[in-house]
Amino acid sequence: MRTITWIADKQVMQMIDQRILPQEFKFVQYDNHTAVAESIRTMVVRGAPAIGAAAAYGMVLAGLNSKASSKEALMSDLKAAGEVLNQSRPTAVNLAWAVRRMLAAAEAFNGDVDGLRAHLLDEANTIADEDVAVNKKMAEYGATLIEDGDTIVHHCNTGALATVDWGTALGVIRMAHEQGKKIHVFVDETRPRLQGARLTAWELEQYGVPYDIITDGSSGLLMRKGLVQKVFFGADRVAANGDVANKIGSYMLALAAYDNGIPAYSVFPISTVDLELERGELIPIEERDGGEVLGLSLFGRKVTPENATARNFAFDVTPNRLFSGWVTEKGVIYPPFNANFLAALKNKDV
Amino acid sequence: MRTITWIADKQVMQMIDQRILPQEFKFVQYDNHTAVAESIRTMVVRGAPAIGAAAAYGMVLAGLNSKASSKEALMSDLKAAGEVLNQSRPTAVNLAWAVRRMLAAAEAFNGDVDGLRAHLLDEANTIADEDVAVNKKMAEYGATLIEDGDTIVHHCNTGALATVDWGTALGVIRMAHEQGKKIHVFVDETRPRLQGARLTAWELEQYGVPYDIITDGSSGLLMRKGLVQKVFFGADRVAANGDVANKIGSYMLALAAYDNGIPAYSVFPISTVDLELERGELIPIEERDGGEVLGLSLFGRKVTPENATARNFAFDVTPNRLFSGWVTEKGVIYPPFNANFLAALKNKDV
Repeated sequence: MRTITWIADKQVMQMIDQRILPQEFKFVQYDNHTAVAESIRTMVVRGAPAIGAAAAYGMVLAGLNSKASSKEALMSDLKAAGEVLNQSRPTAVNLAWAVRRMLAAAEAFNGDVDGLRAHLLDEANTIADEDVAVNKKMAEYGATLIEDGDTIVHHCNTGALATVDWGTALGVIRMAHEQGKKIHVFVDETRPRLQGARLTAWELEQYGVPYDIITDGSSGLLMRKGLVQKVFFGADRVAANGDVANKIGSYMLALAAYDNGIPAYSVFPISTVDLELERGELIPIEERDGGEVLGLSLFGRKVTPENATARNFAFDVTPNRLFSGWVTEKGVIYPPFNANFLAALKNKDV
Repeated sequence: MRTITWIADKQVMQMIDQRILPQEFKFVQYDNHTAVAESIRTMVVRGAPAIGAAAAYGMVLAGLNSKASSKEALMSDLKAAGEVLNQSRPTAVNLAWAVRRMLAAAEAFNGDVDGLRAHLLDEANTIADEDVAVNKKMAEYGATLIEDGDTIVHHCNTGALATVDWGTALGVIRMAHEQGKKIHVFVDETRPRLQGARLTAWELEQYGVPYDIITDGSSGLLMRKGLVQKVFFGADRVAANGDVANKIGSYMLALAAYDNGIPAYSVFPISTVDLELERGELIPIEERDGGEVLGLSLFGRKVTPENATARNFAFDVTPNRLFSGWVTEKGVIYPPFNANFLAALKNKDV
């Protein structure tokens, strides 16, 4: 079951509503790109690869809804739609990457406007299919890093739900489990949106991987107690030097791993690398509404004072020096990132 | 208003119920030491100095409820009560310290058993009064470390609620504010019990100190953005080498501060230092029920899957190398902790 699918007979994109998991499992359907952009902003769908694929189908919908009868007019509508989609979330580069790829496919197409509309759907389907294939390849490479008996700390959700299917960092963990390695996962709950406690815990139950949820501040102690062997998380954008923007809390997790001599890996498709940004400080970090931090209850009781305010940055940046390696569909990249990444791009396996 | 008071005409100890703040402000009264031990275990009262004072009054209640007519029999009842109180929470040393001090006062007392009962109350009142005086002295020393314009990250709750009155780390912040320094506090929400989001936010509102709540995983990014100048937190037990056991998440916060060249300080009375333990690894770390991690809702919706499990260690240990200093009522101790702490004990100011 894919997180994102195209329903051909209805001409709509269908997604799992990730805001209400694991209490409810529901699909939502979208017939226009503005609603898709809003679904990305409000995190009906989240996860860098998943929002890339959602944006690609958003471009398909923009093409279908456009009244344009010339390629020029259709391209203009598509570019406008791309702008709307790009603005929904600023940090994950996969979104802009998918929009750019859809526009390039449209530019390169020779044929009439209806042919172009069909071509856009083909391209979005290709992006979705490639995502699944790329994830499985990453999982194979990454699983070589996991040993029988390992306990792994994982941050946020990077599973099937964060992608079209299979997952990035959680895909690596799933692959190691399917290979028969006995592993245990400490699931960072991942405040404020609790993607770990909600989505990763739910996915691990589907796969039969044993886990315990922990608070985001706990991994340091667990490491000092000798209870952790590896750290895996995903990436929303990777700078040319291997600095990784990922869900808030990743940097402090990587710091704790480094301080305890525990290898930490970021897992992402090469489309997540932004070679135009020299280092992580240049990656735009989304700040979201403080209400996401303040909106929780503990044992049915609202937590914060009535007039409390909060700062809510959605991502942080982990400097390259804290990683033992980076897992991509082109193989595991070891430090230094830049040179070894450029070399790995020549791997034609995928 | 004190967190813990003795109500003389009723012969009961009264405490603020910290489980329901800030939504409700209620007092609860205790007339026996078993109920006091349970109130410590369930965190009606929390904070190392506060549970020390609560345990002292628990010993008073044990004396009053004892039917003993000889000193020997009374001492036996008091020792049994001390055991019960000591077992309520294992990490904070102030609890055992207060019980030991009450037993020593009883041993040393010459007089009849009713005189001894009255003497125990005097001793508990002295412990409570000393706590307030000690906190104010710490606050004066600690406030010298805060500059006008500083933004401070604070973890858990270390204010009036965590002590008899005034507070340790939050007392330092309060003092700097009262001295007219313009400061801002990033309040770590402090999962799982959210003492920051609930109690520290509430206290800062009373004092008029501007703050924002942040998730525990956020301080690293805020530091990298240059938005943080200092880190202050408390301590539940300090080993002879200056390793600090404190609320889970403190270690990762101190690591982030260290990685960004930001000074981190732990603030505690000298009664929190356990010279018998050479280093932090020897401090017993309480593991609490996983339900504390799993019991939260986000926007009214339960978060975790039905059968989810959690690990829930209440404290972690920050190694001495990550601190710029330790604030006590004997002054600010700079590294190396052990030698400078022993020297500071000769300061007769308090």
